Amino acid sequence: MTDTPTPKELLSFAHQLADAAARVSLPLFRNVPKIDNKITRGFDPVTEADRNAEAAIRGLIETHYPTHGICGEEFGVKKGEKWQWVLDPIDGTRAFISGIPTWGTLIALNDGKTVSLGIMDQPFTGERYFATAGNGAFLRHDGRDTKLTCRACDALDKAILATTSPTQFVGTAQEAVWDNLSSTVQLTRYGGDCYNYALLAGGHIDLVVEQVLQPYDIQALIPIVEEAGGIITDWQGGNVMQGGQVIAAGDKAAHQAAMDILNG
Amino acid sequence: MTDTPTPKELLSFAHQLADAAARVSLPLFRNVPKIDNKITRGFDPVTEADRNAEAAIRGLIETHYPTHGICGEEFGVKKGEKWQWVLDPIDGTRAFISGIPTWGTLIALNDGKTVSLGIMDQPFTGERYFATAGNGAFLRHDGRDTKLTCRACDALDKAILATTSPTQFVGTAQEAVWDNLSSTVQLTRYGGDCYNYALLAGGHIDLVVEQVLQPYDIQALIPIVEEAGGIITDWQGGNVMQGGQVIAAGDKAAHQAAMDILNG
Repeated sequence: MTDTPTPKELLSFAHQLADAAARVSLPLFRNVPKIDNKITRGFDPVTEADRNAEAAIRGLIETHYPTHGICGEEFGVKKGEKWQWVLDPIDGTRAFISGIPTWGTLIALNDGKTVSLGIMDQPFTGERYFATAGNGAFLRHDGRDTKLTCRACDALDKAILATTSPTQFVGTAQEAVWDNLSSTVQLTRYGGDCYNYALLAGGHIDLVVEQVLQPYDIQALIPIVEEAGGIITDWQGGNVMQGGQVIAAGDKAAHQAAMDILNG
Repeated sequence: MTDTPTPKELLSFAHQLADAAARVSLPLFRNVPKIDNKITRGFDPVTEADRNAEAAIRGLIETHYPTHGICGEEFGVKKGEKWQWVLDPIDGTRAFISGIPTWGTLIALNDGKTVSLGIMDQPFTGERYFATAGNGAFLRHDGRDTKLTCRACDALDKAILATTSPTQFVGTAQEAVWDNLSSTVQLTRYGGDCYNYALLAGGHIDLVVEQVLQPYDIQALIPIVEEAGGIITDWQGGNVMQGGQVIAAGDKAAHQAAMDILNG
């Protein structure tokens, strides 16, 4: 491999990174030996799997592309030239420690301006969602790649909305607008983390709304949603690469209608 | 087969029922052709998969054990002698229509007094949880049967609690005691339906609390939880075969402590 890899080489390499992470995380799923509290106030567990999976990914990047930058949830930022890999080895650690297979390994590649590649890998169910800019989004499952396409949804009262937890809104300034949105849609689902965006790209749900995301929580999901024909922005319709408040929709009309409610 | 089948014959037959349901439900998962509203007020979808899976199960029972009774979510009660099969072809229809693989097919067999056999099958992830009275609870996955054992949990502040949705408590007389329990435990997970009881039997979570269940929502899960060493009762500690308010715990101390809170 070289320092001027083609998009095809980068995607192939990203699949290797996801494979390496899965070899660490899957044997520890439902078999967690130790749970730490990363933040002493509240409950934000970091498992052995989180740390070891990111270490495995970083090792491969540093060996094959030593000039590339890295931003990972567990081990922070390594500066680089042009390309930056953005990693969340286990997005949905609460699902992971509860045995629920809706966590995922997130791998993104950006050039500082846009995200050109994203992978969301769920090794227990054997689902790998991936996309590269301009080439579509796909689900690899049971050895087959299926093109992902968001579904149409022209009215919020027909929409399925998902968010990780209702508690992220409780007691915040956004509680009222969240309650308003949740009572407008047909159905609200809780739980899911990154898996919700994959379901949106697959045309199974219509909206995902989150309150406080980090760049590594969201970057891999941007090309997956956009290449499936969806839209993913902050609550004001702006670029969401840096995280924060996120709204993703499969249909532009539903996206606008939901933003109207979220902005009061 | 005869009308005096052995427990081993009944378990083998129940696995055939689960296989038959999966052949109907799995091809329709993430491919739902039509969604009806069973109840015009609120949102209680009944899919093609629900009806056709139950029809497939009932057909097999009527052919092989014509004297057995049947109670199914979709097609109601057929009276019989001694044995009654209790069926929920797709428990977690909201998860099903949202593409989330935490729904399950529930198959139970009771003699009018106790549930002697239970299966919870999740065909997308390939997980089948099953138990017969006195013979342990097992997870069949990737062709292997693994014995299920609940984990110890001697204090609520170490417990992971799960329930299908927070909205089942909002605006009810139980909202305050639910909020009290949820703020006492270490972590509360929403979503899951029958899958939560399977995770409890597997030793991954500690408590499941629900407000309004039907007999077909819970009977299959009773032997799975009990044979894994757990306890499953109504909120007063009584028999839960007829549904209603349900509390399941992996540890008797956590069960008692949670009941104390739920009963104010």
